[in-house]
Amino acid sequence: MDYPAEVWGALRELRERSPLVHNITNYVAMDVSANALLAIGAAPAMVHALEEVEEFVGISSALVVNIGTLSPQWVEAMRKAAGRAAALGKPWVLDPVGAGATRYRTDTARELAEMRPTVIRGNASEILAVAGGVEGTRGVDSTHASDDAVEAARSLARRLGCVVAVTGAVDYVTDGERTLSIANGHPMMTRVTALGCSATALVGAFLAVHDDAVFATAAALAVIGLAGEIAAREAPGPGTFRQKLLDALYMMGERTLEGVRIAEA
Amino acid sequence: MDYPAEVWGALRELRERSPLVHNITNYVAMDVSANALLAIGAAPAMVHALEEVEEFVGISSALVVNIGTLSPQWVEAMRKAAGRAAALGKPWVLDPVGAGATRYRTDTARELAEMRPTVIRGNASEILAVAGGVEGTRGVDSTHASDDAVEAARSLARRLGCVVAVTGAVDYVTDGERTLSIANGHPMMTRVTALGCSATALVGAFLAVHDDAVFATAAALAVIGLAGEIAAREAPGPGTFRQKLLDALYMMGERTLEGVRIAEA
Amino acid sequence: MDYPAEVWGALRELRERSPLVHNITNYVAMDVSANALLAIGAAPAMVHALEEVEEFVGISSALVVNIGTLSPQWVEAMRKAAGRAAALGKPWVLDPVGAGATRYRTDTARELAEMRPTVIRGNASEILAVAGGVEGTRGVDSTHASDDAVEAARSLARRLGCVVAVTGAVDYVTDGERTLSIANGHPMMTRVTALGCSATALVGAFLAVHDDAVFATAAALAVIGLAGEIAAREAPGPGTFRQKLLDALYMMGERTLEGVRIAEA
Repeated sequence: MDYPAEVWGALRELRERSPLVHNITNYVAMDVSANALLAIGAAPAMVHALEEVEEFVGISSALVVNIGTLSPQWVEAMRKAAGRAAALGKPWVLDPVGAGATRYRTDTARELAEMRPTVIRGNASEILAVAGGVEGTRGVDSTHASDDAVEAARSLARRLGCVVAVTGAVDYVTDGERTLSIANGHPMMTRVTALGCSATALVGAFLAVHDDAVFATAAALAVIGLAGEIAAREAPGPGTFRQKLLDALYMMGERTLEGVRIAEA
Repeated sequence: MDYPAEVWGALRELRERSPLVHNITNYVAMDVSANALLAIGAAPAMVHALEEVEEFVGISSALVVNIGTLSPQWVEAMRKAAGRAAALGKPWVLDPVGAGATRYRTDTARELAEMRPTVIRGNASEILAVAGGVEGTRGVDSTHASDDAVEAARSLARRLGCVVAVTGAVDYVTDGERTLSIANGHPMMTRVTALGCSATALVGAFLAVHDDAVFATAAALAVIGLAGEIAAREAPGPGTFRQKLLDALYMMGERTLEGVRIAEA
Repeated sequence: MDYPAEVWGALRELRERSPLVHNITNYVAMDVSANALLAIGAAPAMVHALEEVEEFVGISSALVVNIGTLSPQWVEAMRKAAGRAAALGKPWVLDPVGAGATRYRTDTARELAEMRPTVIRGNASEILAVAGGVEGTRGVDSTHASDDAVEAARSLARRLGCVVAVTGAVDYVTDGERTLSIANGHPMMTRVTALGCSATALVGAFLAVHDDAVFATAAALAVIGLAGEIAAREAPGPGTFRQKLLDALYMMGERTLEGVRIAEA
């Protein structure tokens, strides 16, 4: 498969259709996630009120649920929205931020994971926590390398019937059978808050325009990773880097996408 | 009327008085709105607790109410604050984000619109939804051009006795009798989240220093639009653009304001 | 004491240990605080749910409590977290944003101040309001110079048995006996939202790696102030400035730290 060409096709589709992506995400990630979605060509909305989440899922093309700054009322909105997305057959992505760090987070992440997400994206510690393997993350930081979690991701994907993405220095995306690795990205991305959350948001955007969830997820991760590589070439530190990463998402074209490093794993 | 000179006069006044602008706004817009207000020379505060909103209105020079990430408790705070502003005769601005997208949003926007705002600022779809004309926006995106909504804006302004601003490629500001058009701005502004919300915040700042609400609103929209034009000259994408737009607000001077394109419509 | 060398030692320690800093902070400050913590080398987490704050304090190295956008539920979380930090002997910092502006804010700030914070950091008006001296701030803006509040800070520090930092053109840090002044910083810092909050967050990070709370606080304030000086050399306005300040935190090294201007006051 010619991954760069496939990603370029998906990206053109995304820009042409500009899918409305409904985010129930954390307070820290809202700004940069919305800007990443706008930069790539999607239309973000942040909507969390119980009074409207289900109706909003109805007009959206994809839903992104991120538990980063969870609280009971927000979790209730996540449940409602996820339930509605599943009922309507709309793609939805779960980002189990900090699963493993506290019981509340782990329980919430596992409960939402059972609600038929299309994709779950987390770092190795989070995926291990959702899978039930290991406890003890430090919150948003992964204390495990992504390779460690690949087997857990595969069996979690099979059990839940969804796609699981483990991100790190190398990202892995699996549905339990097929697994892709994505070798794009740059260490500076770990020095900017909520870029993992933004990656999840982009997964939502690509799911809205591509039926193959394994590929769509890999495409999103490759695109943001590549944007990170480009930004790192010019940025002396994470402040400038963040803005240049958004610029790179906006300018991402066919030529640049030759840098996509997706492979069968 | 020499609009550039008038805008410059209002801007100097704003910078001299540095009005305290009380914002009850959405989670996505808080950061960039506060930074836009600081860049232009105002003093922003974000205060939403029921326990203090009314008291805070009392010490502020203007109130900005934005329903972007509304929920019942926040709407209650908006009601209280708006009621207090109206009672004290302080200017307040309503930004009916996403009106038309869900019933909850439309109902809330309409209810607040009845509470004697000084100005309502929205895109064409939002203004049409508040006016009761049309349903079916996609959230924060306008699916109508601003020209379409001018008539609706005029009659809404007359009915509510307030100023209505419809923003888009060209912005229109009307009190139902007089209408100004503002032809500043740049398409890149649509690729950065919450710049519409930031425009609303700037309207609050200009209302705090100028009694003519039609002019003050047009001035705010011209200033942020002009900042967008300046930023677009140097920015390759929306990440850098957002920061340069804030720089341009900060540096905005008499000479630059010759680019103001306000006209009677 | 060779302050630049001491600060460099603390900063190296911080980068080596990358302490997990638990923030219960305001919506406006979350993004830039998290990015400032990441840029300097710490690991931020934003966690506020009653269901998990105490557990999260247990895995964190320091706690930062900021009342900027307070509401009753959040204040309850702040109480719980602060109580837990005090019980565990973990350092925690209070940022009494806007104390003096409304009764609710002043009362909350004073109540939390009694809960044995390691450090309280505010502008002159906020510290005076917590100390009970004067009312009438304009919210986040200080209407008093930091010098005015030094005496109040000293007696507050003695009464509460904590360290009090008053920031402004010159910052002062005192435990009631010893007082340090920090002459780093740049006026452009007042044109970017939440840099005071970010300074408080950095205080948390330095407290996590250094037992002398007066010095750790001064070090954090010197480092962010110095980053502001560096950023101001290149930035034409506050938008670019903010990103360059984050870059400067990231790149801060031994040589740059020769610019540290801490002195006995």
